[in-house]
Amino acid sequence: MSTKQDDEIAQERLVDLAAEFYDQFASGEVPHMDIPTRTKSNIVFDEESKVWVYGDRTSTRSANSVRGARKLLKAAYAIEFLVNQLEADRSSTLRELYYLSESWDNEEAQFSSQDESNQLIEDLEIVSGVTREDFHMRPEESGATLMGPLELREQTRRGEREIHCQKDVGEGGYQIPNNPDTIDFLDHDIDFVLCVETGGMRDRLVENGFDEEYNCLVVHLKGQPARATRRITKRLHDELDLPVVVFTDGDPWSYRIYGSVAYGSIKSAHLSEYLATPEARFVGIQPEDIVEYDLPTDPLADSDVNALESELEDPRFETDYWTEQIELQLDIEKKAEQQALASRGLDFVTDTYLPERLSTMGVL
Amino acid sequence: MSTKQDDEIAQERLVDLAAEFYDQFASGEVPHMDIPTRTKSNIVFDEESKVWVYGDRTSTRSANSVRGARKLLKAAYAIEFLVNQLEADRSSTLRELYYLSESWDNEEAQFSSQDESNQLIEDLEIVSGVTREDFHMRPEESGATLMGPLELREQTRRGEREIHCQKDVGEGGYQIPNNPDTIDFLDHDIDFVLCVETGGMRDRLVENGFDEEYNCLVVHLKGQPARATRRITKRLHDELDLPVVVFTDGDPWSYRIYGSVAYGSIKSAHLSEYLATPEARFVGIQPEDIVEYDLPTDPLADSDVNALESELEDPRFETDYWTEQIELQLDIEKKAEQQALASRGLDFVTDTYLPERLSTMGVL
Repeated sequence: MSTKQDDEIAQERLVDLAAEFYDQFASGEVPHMDIPTRTKSNIVFDEESKVWVYGDRTSTRSANSVRGARKLLKAAYAIEFLVNQLEADRSSTLRELYYLSESWDNEEAQFSSQDESNQLIEDLEIVSGVTREDFHMRPEESGATLMGPLELREQTRRGEREIHCQKDVGEGGYQIPNNPDTIDFLDHDIDFVLCVETGGMRDRLVENGFDEEYNCLVVHLKGQPARATRRITKRLHDELDLPVVVFTDGDPWSYRIYGSVAYGSIKSAHLSEYLATPEARFVGIQPEDIVEYDLPTDPLADSDVNALESELEDPRFETDYWTEQIELQLDIEKKAEQQALASRGLDFVTDTYLPERLSTMGVL
Repeated sequence: MSTKQDDEIAQERLVDLAAEFYDQFASGEVPHMDIPTRTKSNIVFDEESKVWVYGDRTSTRSANSVRGARKLLKAAYAIEFLVNQLEADRSSTLRELYYLSESWDNEEAQFSSQDESNQLIEDLEIVSGVTREDFHMRPEESGATLMGPLELREQTRRGEREIHCQKDVGEGGYQIPNNPDTIDFLDHDIDFVLCVETGGMRDRLVENGFDEEYNCLVVHLKGQPARATRRITKRLHDELDLPVVVFTDGDPWSYRIYGSVAYGSIKSAHLSEYLATPEARFVGIQPEDIVEYDLPTDPLADSDVNALESELEDPRFETDYWTEQIELQLDIEKKAEQQALASRGLDFVTDTYLPERLSTMGVL
């Protein structure tokens, strides 16, 4: 639930979009919508916000073909649905929108696949500058959990809830809601935010009391993190001025998980300023650690090698640090999971690995 | 965290297992371990507990070959690790156990893959009659969430937490811990337990206040449910004497989700009495509903047809109800998702579908 004011802004922007089609008609133009091209070659680094955003290249959805006209018709119906949803203070999922379109009176406006409705919502986000969350569109997958010395207030449909993310939760932690902008941070004793890829490692840190000993907030990423998880991580960094470190497996897919926290994704570069935490740093498992800590490894598969090579060419990974690490990994031809640290004992990660790495990084 | 007493029983049983190897040596026998054969053909319905359990056929792990002897060696090392873990009141994940074996002094005892260590733990569960949770082995994947009029007390490593699953949680609900036997039910106002497959539908029910209006506890299954989710569902049924209904998509994979709640799985039939809720009933989406409510559908894929045919031959689905529904589905050649109900409007599921179905079933 966002504030009443957010809802009004979202409604306004949506209505403006529809109004634009009218204006185009009125002035004799073929109605159209310009959208930034969403490819790797069209993302640029914005020096001010320090995130990757779309460049100048655009694609046009125009009513000059039947296919294009149908797209704009669907956009108009979706806009009407979203405005009504905001008006009624309701929300819905992307999948519900797809099915709901079957009830629309104009068959041409109905979506033929969920890909189509998903893409339209992304288009509307980009063009309106309003996030999906502010349209009250919920994701299918909810965010993950928090555990650490943080007291927050969540605005729910059932009233306010004040929750301390150590004292008022079970071992499972605090479940991040779909829209974390309903949360206010009340008080905290956090020194840094530690985002963790796997559930097994998250549980290890909690069992070993790492959050208590080091005053850290453990954020479970649950693999590729949901938008809600990335959003709350960014807010913790920006609003509470906290360092953020990301702890994942040591393989190219996990570097992408780090990348999605730090840089955002190509598909949603329009949201980078809302979701990305460019100051987030990678704590490991680094390829260097595989050598230094002599971790149990698996050989790189062909798909791993391809992914690493593609990362070498990705502008978001074009730093000395990443070039060095990725080249080292291609050289040693090995990868390691974060739980491989258990080969040195169950406490090695909390007694040795993380304290050493975090000291080197200047976080501790 | 289980009770001190549970820990002692688990330790005792594990030590007994190891002692058996010694006794076999002493009496001149080749050491061995007999384990029920875990296939579809070796599960039988236990009339008393009303769950499917293993039949009489057994497989033998024997030291009469190098391979077999190595298996027993690994079992002995794993038993020692588990006994020490219980002694120290620690816990670990299956993946940690696999990596940890690299630190064992005898290289022959180290696991060569995680499949091997996973299977050994299952073997030990079966032979000792102690669950993995009581060995303090955590799963990788945590359970899902609860939302509804339930007040519980969770025993955590940091002390007791009393939590009301509506009043003390955010919109995300209460996160089920890895071992739900750390929970005591204190008080409740629940009329029935509603297990829901998808996050989108779980959020719909919560947004529409279905748990408040119908005094129901919404359990999110999150696809194929984790052991923790199945365990707490069973405990809610057994200890609070509550009806349990399962709400999934209308396709063969979702019937398996229902099956894992109600009947347990073939691979873990030794846990049926601990995890399965045979009285759980299927609320839908039934193939019948696809016809009756004229839902948007997808055609059955070949893999769907194969899965349905395999279910027809599965003893756990050999009831009039399931035979009828599965044959109907093979006939209409269609499947539908639970969110397809949104084609009739966002409130259709809570205003019409569930109340109608639950009345028919006698739950409301």
